[in-house]
Amino acid sequence: MIVKNEAAGILRAQEILKPIMIHTPLAPSNILSAEKQGDIYLKLENLQRTGSFKARGAYYKLASLTDQEKQRGVIACSAGNHAQGVALAAKLLGINARIFMPTHAPNVKIDATRSYGATVVLAGETFDETKQYTLEAAALSGEIFISPFDDLKVIEGQGTIGLELLEDLSEIDNVIVPIGGGGLIAGIAVAIKTFRPEVKIIGVQTYQVHGMVRSIWQKKLVAKRDSATLADGCDVALAGELTYHLLKNRIDETVLVEEKMIEEAICYLALKEKVIAEGAGALSTAAILSGTIDHLLKGKKTAAIVSGGNIDFSLFKEII
Amino acid sequence: MIVKNEAAGILRAQEILKPIMIHTPLAPSNILSAEKQGDIYLKLENLQRTGSFKARGAYYKLASLTDQEKQRGVIACSAGNHAQGVALAAKLLGINARIFMPTHAPNVKIDATRSYGATVVLAGETFDETKQYTLEAAALSGEIFISPFDDLKVIEGQGTIGLELLEDLSEIDNVIVPIGGGGLIAGIAVAIKTFRPEVKIIGVQTYQVHGMVRSIWQKKLVAKRDSATLADGCDVALAGELTYHLLKNRIDETVLVEEKMIEEAICYLALKEKVIAEGAGALSTAAILSGTIDHLLKGKKTAAIVSGGNIDFSLFKEII
Repeated sequence: MIVKNEAAGILRAQEILKPIMIHTPLAPSNILSAEKQGDIYLKLENLQRTGSFKARGAYYKLASLTDQEKQRGVIACSAGNHAQGVALAAKLLGINARIFMPTHAPNVKIDATRSYGATVVLAGETFDETKQYTLEAAALSGEIFISPFDDLKVIEGQGTIGLELLEDLSEIDNVIVPIGGGGLIAGIAVAIKTFRPEVKIIGVQTYQVHGMVRSIWQKKLVAKRDSATLADGCDVALAGELTYHLLKNRIDETVLVEEKMIEEAICYLALKEKVIAEGAGALSTAAILSGTIDHLLKGKKTAAIVSGGNIDFSLFKEII
Repeated sequence: MIVKNEAAGILRAQEILKPIMIHTPLAPSNILSAEKQGDIYLKLENLQRTGSFKARGAYYKLASLTDQEKQRGVIACSAGNHAQGVALAAKLLGINARIFMPTHAPNVKIDATRSYGATVVLAGETFDETKQYTLEAAALSGEIFISPFDDLKVIEGQGTIGLELLEDLSEIDNVIVPIGGGGLIAGIAVAIKTFRPEVKIIGVQTYQVHGMVRSIWQKKLVAKRDSATLADGCDVALAGELTYHLLKNRIDETVLVEEKMIEEAICYLALKEKVIAEGAGALSTAAILSGTIDHLLKGKKTAAIVSGGNIDFSLFKEII
């Protein structure tokens, strides 16, 4: 059965990742819990190595390459967090890495990627342009292309978060997950639904960019991007084919949030929860603060994924 | 034997506090671990209720009052975090609370204290002046005075952090703890030394204010304060008699840090670890970054207490 196989892959990923990645804290939020009359926990993937969950999938993918593939080196394109994930994984595994990033990528993410020893190439205005350059370069060089989300190993790596949630909060009712290309939510959904099919998977995107949510609504893969979003880590117009396929029958609720609410969530997390989240990382909290899912939270146990904390500090200062 | 009795008190405190307080995360710091060639973990008490460890001791103290005492109400003086701890505890236990704060206390701490329903009285320029006003008011009103540190119940409450460390990191070698009046470090030292006497207790204060460290050096209780410090939560010239008595034979190392290093630690924690620490909360990290205790960290497992995150946000913005 496919489901069992997929969860088996996530269990294998967990074995590989356990000594390398951080089992991130699941911090109870007394303030949100009191406000929403349910138990709300924050899964702090912003405290993960590289400051986001992306390190999990990247490391598992690179560790799964054959020796021959490892020798060819890896190439990736990313607005930021996948870049750092691949760069760290490559460094730990002794693989050469070349990362293409859009020219407007936040400095904090470019610098961090370089700090892991990867070669950074700034090319393209949009993510799609950058990806085109990357694929052309890979075709010429023979480096292995590491997809940021549409790859089973990457998805299985992210899915280990789902296993940690089940371990830390056995009576969990809901998981709220930010969506970009869908790798994080697909992995978590497969992990959770395999063992606890009754747990609700709630996906969050922005009004500006919500290809995956639109695809779920229309029951076919479609793109949706109106303009840039503060949740730059989720700025993916067209979700992955594989992520869409894995998610479509496993997602229970979809939420769209406004930019203003993302700012509020970043402020809330800093002021009240004392953690730093980037825009994408604050999406789950924004969904909670928006009030649109209060009926799902009341009397229930909910984990909200804070997926990353790599926000440009000048932007962060403007917001708080 | 006194030691056993004291640890017994901390075990009792843990029973009372377990359903109320957060067992805060012990987050591995891969960056510091790599730099210092030892395993370094951050005990994130800034994620505790009220944003600091103070809620533990305050709650345990208030819960230990007799019904008659509870009816008289409580009174406390505090530059901030003890205020919030007492205010929250009083609210949860249905006790009236009046909190005296210095007129220069950060707005974020005054507002938070009020938000728990306590009455805030701003009086006095220095902590000592404020304390004088508080004791006079208590003498008139009959309210129970709750010491911020020099009280066995308060110390036992803070000591539960030590039990959590032993639980989460069984092979622990060092604990680095910020010192103000000494309640936090005395509680942790009693807990740790009772069960694992070989674990090193490392206390940190600032060059500006370091009454407890000076007292340890001189083997008698003396005051030491040159000027204000960024670690306003540790701005206590004269440590407690009880805390000094409990700590003097249980502390292994003392470290003084410069103001500049506290700023660096606040920046480091925000930029790299994605958590917000106040000055006092950053003292352990400052001690690590200063390089003065590298010899103690190498090849060892060390927990650094990040004691609180209630920093004034305008100040935080200036620093980062």
